[in-house]
Amino acid sequence: MRRSIATVSISGTLVEKLRAIQAAGFGCVEIFENDLLYYDGTPGDVRRICDDLGLRIALYQPFRDFEGVGAERLERNVERLKRKFDVMHALGTDRLLVCSSVSPDTIRDDELIADQLAVLARHAQAAGVTACYEALAWGRHVHSYRHAWRLVDTVDHPSLTLALDSFHTLSLGDPVDEIASIPGDRIGFVQIADAPRMDMDVLEWSRHYRCFPGQGDFDLAGFTARVVKSGYRGPLSLEVFNDGFRSAPPAATAADGYRSLLLLEEQTRPRLTGASDTDALPLYAPPAVPAHLSTQFLEFAVDAASREHLVEWLEKLRFRRAGRHRSKDVTLYRHGMAAIVLNAEPDSFASAFFQQHGLSLCASAFRLDDAGLALERAAGFGYVPFSGRVGPNERVVPAVRSPDGSINYLVNETSGQPTLFEADFVLTDIDGPNEVGPLTGIDHICLALPMGGLDSWTLFLKAVFGLDASPGVLVPDPYGLVRSRAFSNRDRSLRVVLNASVDPHTAVAETVHVYHGTGLNHVAFSTDDIFGAVAEFKSAGLPLLHIPRNYYDDLEARYALPESLLARLQEHGLLYDRDERGGEFLHAYTETLDRRFFLEIVERRGGYDGYGAPNAAVRLASQARRRRDNAAA
Amino acid sequence: MRRSIATVSISGTLVEKLRAIQAAGFGCVEIFENDLLYYDGTPGDVRRICDDLGLRIALYQPFRDFEGVGAERLERNVERLKRKFDVMHALGTDRLLVCSSVSPDTIRDDELIADQLAVLARHAQAAGVTACYEALAWGRHVHSYRHAWRLVDTVDHPSLTLALDSFHTLSLGDPVDEIASIPGDRIGFVQIADAPRMDMDVLEWSRHYRCFPGQGDFDLAGFTARVVKSGYRGPLSLEVFNDGFRSAPPAATAADGYRSLLLLEEQTRPRLTGASDTDALPLYAPPAVPAHLSTQFLEFAVDAASREHLVEWLEKLRFRRAGRHRSKDVTLYRHGMAAIVLNAEPDSFASAFFQQHGLSLCASAFRLDDAGLALERAAGFGYVPFSGRVGPNERVVPAVRSPDGSINYLVNETSGQPTLFEADFVLTDIDGPNEVGPLTGIDHICLALPMGGLDSWTLFLKAVFGLDASPGVLVPDPYGLVRSRAFSNRDRSLRVVLNASVDPHTAVAETVHVYHGTGLNHVAFSTDDIFGAVAEFKSAGLPLLHIPRNYYDDLEARYALPESLLARLQEHGLLYDRDERGGEFLHAYTETLDRRFFLEIVERRGGYDGYGAPNAAVRLASQARRRRDNAAA
Repeated sequence: MRRSIATVSISGTLVEKLRAIQAAGFGCVEIFENDLLYYDGTPGDVRRICDDLGLRIALYQPFRDFEGVGAERLERNVERLKRKFDVMHALGTDRLLVCSSVSPDTIRDDELIADQLAVLARHAQAAGVTACYEALAWGRHVHSYRHAWRLVDTVDHPSLTLALDSFHTLSLGDPVDEIASIPGDRIGFVQIADAPRMDMDVLEWSRHYRCFPGQGDFDLAGFTARVVKSGYRGPLSLEVFNDGFRSAPPAATAADGYRSLLLLEEQTRPRLTGASDTDALPLYAPPAVPAHLSTQFLEFAVDAASREHLVEWLEKLRFRRAGRHRSKDVTLYRHGMAAIVLNAEPDSFASAFFQQHGLSLCASAFRLDDAGLALERAAGFGYVPFSGRVGPNERVVPAVRSPDGSINYLVNETSGQPTLFEADFVLTDIDGPNEVGPLTGIDHICLALPMGGLDSWTLFLKAVFGLDASPGVLVPDPYGLVRSRAFSNRDRSLRVVLNASVDPHTAVAETVHVYHGTGLNHVAFSTDDIFGAVAEFKSAGLPLLHIPRNYYDDLEARYALPESLLARLQEHGLLYDRDERGGEFLHAYTETLDRRFFLEIVERRGGYDGYGAPNAAVRLASQARRRRDNAAA
Repeated sequence: MRRSIATVSISGTLVEKLRAIQAAGFGCVEIFENDLLYYDGTPGDVRRICDDLGLRIALYQPFRDFEGVGAERLERNVERLKRKFDVMHALGTDRLLVCSSVSPDTIRDDELIADQLAVLARHAQAAGVTACYEALAWGRHVHSYRHAWRLVDTVDHPSLTLALDSFHTLSLGDPVDEIASIPGDRIGFVQIADAPRMDMDVLEWSRHYRCFPGQGDFDLAGFTARVVKSGYRGPLSLEVFNDGFRSAPPAATAADGYRSLLLLEEQTRPRLTGASDTDALPLYAPPAVPAHLSTQFLEFAVDAASREHLVEWLEKLRFRRAGRHRSKDVTLYRHGMAAIVLNAEPDSFASAFFQQHGLSLCASAFRLDDAGLALERAAGFGYVPFSGRVGPNERVVPAVRSPDGSINYLVNETSGQPTLFEADFVLTDIDGPNEVGPLTGIDHICLALPMGGLDSWTLFLKAVFGLDASPGVLVPDPYGLVRSRAFSNRDRSLRVVLNASVDPHTAVAETVHVYHGTGLNHVAFSTDDIFGAVAEFKSAGLPLLHIPRNYYDDLEARYALPESLLARLQEHGLLYDRDERGGEFLHAYTETLDRRFFLEIVERRGGYDGYGAPNAAVRLASQARRRRDNAAA
């Protein structure tokens, strides 16, 4: 499909917006009236800028409160309309979005409204343009697309078509099936927006919380499949009102918008059951999501001091040094299936990462079936391939940048060939990769993002790795709220949790405020015997986060746990969660290694699939208390 | 009334919270269960800390989902209850808040519920405590205080009382009159929260948007008056769930909470019509709001360069230098009733202000009837009196600090005595204070606040000056949204507009982001002839902000203005707004003098009482474009 976006969806002046939209790959744009209003130039100037950028102005919007009015008002509205037609001619666009009336004195008479829409159609025809009539979810009388379609169908004039907007339809829970039966050439325009499910006034919801497809909770592939089935082949155009996007850099937002349309098109294809030839449809078809995905290693940017500290902890966790990189100051540690790489190479991407973030995850390596195709998929979605400095005899590994600039290596090991570790590292003679120890692998990684970072990462994890998102949860930190969302693939071989501060004080702690709130990252290792593992790690001296006694008193009241289990949990300092089907989650945290980083040990029992979210507040409070204590000491 | 606050209302660890609450002046506190849960000590430890601080634990909360359950669940709930009674004994508190059940399987049978509340009452009595039963607005079956009261009245047991919460009552629009007829000794506890009017799910509204009395839109004085009339004399306790407060420093938030209760008590007194002796009631009675309030001068912190620039502009606006301070590097400029003081004194509060903010408003002086009483009032609300370095022969002027540290001089001129200007300044011989010129005075000042600054300033302006707040509006800046709220006194002799960025990128522009969005302050001067004034200022070379032509095209479509007026507006670069009663607002902006500051010239016609809010987005867009152009140049 042709890909379009409304100027209102991103920040900046009109010219900045148009440049960002073109750079992201869009071929079409909707001009939002206010953006033109604030622009210091003529509509003709805007047309020339778009021409120079190769952007087609697909639509001018919105025209409001035309229909359902008295005769005198209708006359004034026609005058108003003619002025806007003049603007459209100067802009060089032939489509006008007309929203259903919201005025309290709208006359609720379909016959009258149809007559007035016929007037609209005749004037549009005279001006050589097409009006696209859209039912606003909060329209006074017309608020469903089915009602709008009945009216457009009644008028039956080529210059009056139906405009669809996924938000207006899905926010009301309107059934979408009927879309497929509308003749495609009677649909003049299709706007696309996702949104998180919220129970609030639909107008406020629409104005502040829309987001790009894939970032929210709506079934947009289902919606779009009906649109495609109708025969509509015009643009799919993003129209997103989002407080965060309003203040984020326009180029990055526009790029995410474009990706979101590609992803939507990919997700729409399998929903087109019964379509005669889906391959011929104008929908994006990237290489499939990587299969047999798992984490091969996590790579941390370290300096000498933090490496020493981290190695001390890893050794207490029974990790052993397994190798040293052939050409760089990079070491490999392993325990069971878990591998950790510590990168202290000067003048590398890792050292740049360390300077910016301190001890932090700078790269992850993923085993998968076809690294070349995985890279092609990621690049197709506009993510930036990475190639670093490679020494002699080292393998060239396809890689792609995350939204924060960290690197994702895409690794396929061919049997008979040296593994990546064998190729790049001088391996130490240890008891093989499956050395016996209490840890079985990496359960999940958790990234702390700046406020507003969630949307971009959501798209990245869905588009590149095909992960599914769980609903978001809010977790209270003593110094602000944290929004948390978990992602995983179907077989749970890859799990990622994203935490973002809701509050700016927490997010930009370092620069403006003493409040650190979050800003921590962690890695959770899995075990099948957490009591044994924790006992062993504690006796080796691993500092575990202390959990207040009151937590266990409350646990007792909440779950009526057996006295003995409760006592063992408390003795080992473990946290506990239970799901509705009786699955259990037992976990423990280390203290923070520096302000940004700690480790977790988890045991899943009985198919538990979460992350102990009810305990996150306890952890955050304990960590905050420790930071205060340390600051005071 | 005794003043109390729930620990959930502010940020921090439990100990930090308790210290902040005590420091703010509260005598009582509600312990929120989760704060205890995260605390690494026993309930007895909490009791000792409170004892040491002189804080009484008025209540432990919340106990949930007790009533409306089957027999087996009731038994478990009684067990749960007994554990909480143990906690309460250790805490040394005798009141437990019991919320109406929210569980989906609540049995909707008032008789059963009353029986189970009677069970609750008997167990409470046995434990020597009182249960306070509260109707949550989203309670499954019981959601109004009247319903809760019927149940409590039916049980008729001294250990079961009613708890009131202003949010639960006012959010539902429940009538409050019946409160007055409940026997005061049957009300066990009263929680107070305000909130902005929002059309959203009441649970979400309650959890994220509550605020202190006076910061929102509820009629809390009306609610509290009924509570007082009932005979209730227990604590008024703030229980506020607010995302902003969760991340703000606890001491400042607690101090605002305490002020808000004082202000509420003051506002409640006049609502107690018919009460026998209001003077004997335990309600705060500060000195009255200052009468005959007006701005005497505005004082700007400047350095030599910005002073030169600002003086150049002031002279183009026909301000004339009217004096020089007797002992400091401070000069006075006047035009009509408007007076501007430029403070470049080194090592003064003004120089500190300049270093932090650049050119900015560092002080305002207000004429009023009784400066001593006004200071007493401000100090009574906990605002900090200021006394600066005073030279020989200069007057000592009472002053109080604003939330941002700027100074408010409280000036009363006694006839026959030298005026403040005469006392402090060597005055130049100009044509007297009412020199003929097109400006008549200061219409309003507009302060740009960091995100989250609105609530604190709202209390300050209401408490110190008795200003009323208009409803807030959201204004789009090209780089983020701005929340704007206007304040004025009854005779409109003082008008203040507060703008706060909704988005952190805009708010903390200097430190983390290129996005400056707002961060501007301005002063608006009034005139009776804006066309003449602007023509004169322009010909003197004052740089006015350019308004795009498209704005006028749209104005034409919106208001159907006479061709001649439209032409004159465009010729002079004026913005236009009209209210529903035909009042008109014509205004023009200067360019920005530095990144933070500009001037406005306004003419009000026909009783127009607003600030041209629909034009603010045009201004912000023009300013943003200018900044971009300047940055590019």
